[in-house]
Amino acid sequence: MKTETQTVDTIRRPIRGAQAPPMTHGAATRQTTPRPIPAHPTAVVYCEGNFARIDGKTANGLVRHSQAYQILSVIDSTCSGENSGLVLDDVRNTIPVVKDLNAAITRETYMPDTFIYGMAPSTGRLSPADRAVVLEAIAHGMNIVSGLHEYLGDDTEIAQAASDRHVTIRDIRRPKPSKDMRLFDGSVADVPALRIAILGTDCAIGKRTTATCLARALNAKGIKTVLVGTGQTGLMQGAKYGIAMDAVPPQFCCGELEGAIVAASEAEQPDVIVIEGQGALSHPAFCTSAFILRGSQPDAVILQHAPKRVNRCDFDTMPMPTPASEIALIEAFADTKVIGITLNHEGMTDAEITDTIIAQSTELGLPVTDALTRPEAHLHAMVATAFPAMMQKPALDTI
Amino acid sequence: MKTETQTVDTIRRPIRGAQAPPMTHGAATRQTTPRPIPAHPTAVVYCEGNFARIDGKTANGLVRHSQAYQILSVIDSTCSGENSGLVLDDVRNTIPVVKDLNAAITRETYMPDTFIYGMAPSTGRLSPADRAVVLEAIAHGMNIVSGLHEYLGDDTEIAQAASDRHVTIRDIRRPKPSKDMRLFDGSVADVPALRIAILGTDCAIGKRTTATCLARALNAKGIKTVLVGTGQTGLMQGAKYGIAMDAVPPQFCCGELEGAIVAASEAEQPDVIVIEGQGALSHPAFCTSAFILRGSQPDAVILQHAPKRVNRCDFDTMPMPTPASEIALIEAFADTKVIGITLNHEGMTDAEITDTIIAQSTELGLPVTDALTRPEAHLHAMVATAFPAMMQKPALDTI
Repeated sequence: MKTETQTVDTIRRPIRGAQAPPMTHGAATRQTTPRPIPAHPTAVVYCEGNFARIDGKTANGLVRHSQAYQILSVIDSTCSGENSGLVLDDVRNTIPVVKDLNAAITRETYMPDTFIYGMAPSTGRLSPADRAVVLEAIAHGMNIVSGLHEYLGDDTEIAQAASDRHVTIRDIRRPKPSKDMRLFDGSVADVPALRIAILGTDCAIGKRTTATCLARALNAKGIKTVLVGTGQTGLMQGAKYGIAMDAVPPQFCCGELEGAIVAASEAEQPDVIVIEGQGALSHPAFCTSAFILRGSQPDAVILQHAPKRVNRCDFDTMPMPTPASEIALIEAFADTKVIGITLNHEGMTDAEITDTIIAQSTELGLPVTDALTRPEAHLHAMVATAFPAMMQKPALDTI
Repeated sequence: MKTETQTVDTIRRPIRGAQAPPMTHGAATRQTTPRPIPAHPTAVVYCEGNFARIDGKTANGLVRHSQAYQILSVIDSTCSGENSGLVLDDVRNTIPVVKDLNAAITRETYMPDTFIYGMAPSTGRLSPADRAVVLEAIAHGMNIVSGLHEYLGDDTEIAQAASDRHVTIRDIRRPKPSKDMRLFDGSVADVPALRIAILGTDCAIGKRTTATCLARALNAKGIKTVLVGTGQTGLMQGAKYGIAMDAVPPQFCCGELEGAIVAASEAEQPDVIVIEGQGALSHPAFCTSAFILRGSQPDAVILQHAPKRVNRCDFDTMPMPTPASEIALIEAFADTKVIGITLNHEGMTDAEITDTIIAQSTELGLPVTDALTRPEAHLHAMVATAFPAMMQKPALDTI
């Protein structure tokens, strides 16, 4: 019965926006194959030439954490045969890297439900080679998920192929119709939860990862924490609250973020709301952090920084800001305070991470940690140091 | 011949984006009526209940200045029979205010080419009553121009009616396809012209008007100045360079603005480029000024302020910032300097304007003027004071 209903739904609405939940089942044409119904749709993540690199951040994020899809494999011929966890974080997981779509399919007993385009090129566009692979996945009856700015559902050939095969296209970045979007109205000021925004000194620097770790660390200490996502990767990972801010018209950016925070507050009544940042407030090209600070009005900011990054990601001529200058900018721009620094350890040895933590905490007078290589309890301690009263209450409640 | 070509074009592309130039002729069904071809299409501006008010800013702007359309009349039953120039600025013009669409049509010899929706409600949406008037205009064979966030060309009933009548719908805020948009690349730094951004302490406060006056004042002194628009009103008025920033995805906002500035520089080789601001950098809901500062990297900023405005427009609970706090914010956010203040004199007597000019220039140590009630030469003087060398050169060239 469930399969039939979903088939009807698939046919009636072949192109779905970001707000639509993922399909538990894939193509309508496969409804006759008996199979166990998994809790989440299965997915292959396409990241040719970019896995574990900056433009592969969607795939990297999904390999580390995915609530909405069960990730089966990653496609990247430049590291096929390796274990994705080892390539990414030196920690083995169950997700192999395979050389192409055919290899991804033949290693499974059932056809994977979903093909996720796992790259986030700064152009936001699909290359001709990638396009052929998307069409191949559709021909196999797989639903398509994409976070590109170029909506695959608007591409005549791709849309026709999807319609012919009765598969769905989920364009994560496609905004809601403007009549369904809201303006900022100041109601975020009435949200009782402590609001912490994770900003950064650059794009693709680990803000979402640190936000995820922080939420986990606080929840582990009995402090109920909800994450509000602002990027396409978070939405693909299954973030319950959030928007793909980069695709929302600027008129509605602050209001839509405020709406997601108010919704999270009302539904979950959390102690803390962690807001994923985007870009960098100082970034000449990507400064949606301005909307994040205005729309969320955070009590505190944690700043993610990559000490070894010389120039901004994708902009070879733009030097990285220092944490000190970014902190000054954030605190001048919004009525908030930076309570700590989290490191992206790209290009660093473990000894360098330790040295940097000591040097930066001395220089800035703030706690510094690395969300991935240092204990997550350090993230809890960073918040507890800044808000001692707030942190004691829920901890006592849970004893 | 020209009419035939345009008729074909009209039928082939009934829905046009912001980049499309206005149609010189209206409905294809009127091609057989012989009439003189005006230099610009004629237009009626609809502004029911809002003319000379804040949400009527599109109509107000078109009455003051329109290069792309010849404005015939303004529709607003609450001040019908009056002269639009007198209502707006106490200066008589040739544009009457009429009570409804029927009155606007019957006073003309020929059917007006265009119906411009002249309001900019903060919701960006069409009311049911306004919707009926748009359909009536289409039934009369008029092309439609709208700056609403809700694209009229996407409304099934309106689009069908436009198709049936072979009229065009120009949704000013509809962005280009993302594949045609550009990312910021830093090339604005190579633009030789002095760049001056007109920012403000609120929305709908007169930034575009001051920008227009400043460009005129500098051109009058022989300093070649080009205006780059960033809002829908400027595009409707016929701004040659610009974008409707509020509708561009945030990813491309800085880059699209940079592209418009580079295009203006290359085509016109001006001495000065004036960039129209949007919202306010301090505004909790509308802070696209962040993109304007990053995308244009201005050498200087002029700040527009309304001393008698208590709360932000459309936000009764948000007090206005002071010029001093806005200046500090702008100069902390970007490597630029505020070189003067321009006043919006709403609710002020002429004596109060004079007193405020004296008081604020003393307090802030900056030149202060009012672009509409004080000589435009004061705007030139403001720039000349800040950039004496720059201002001398072109002045000498023209002697």
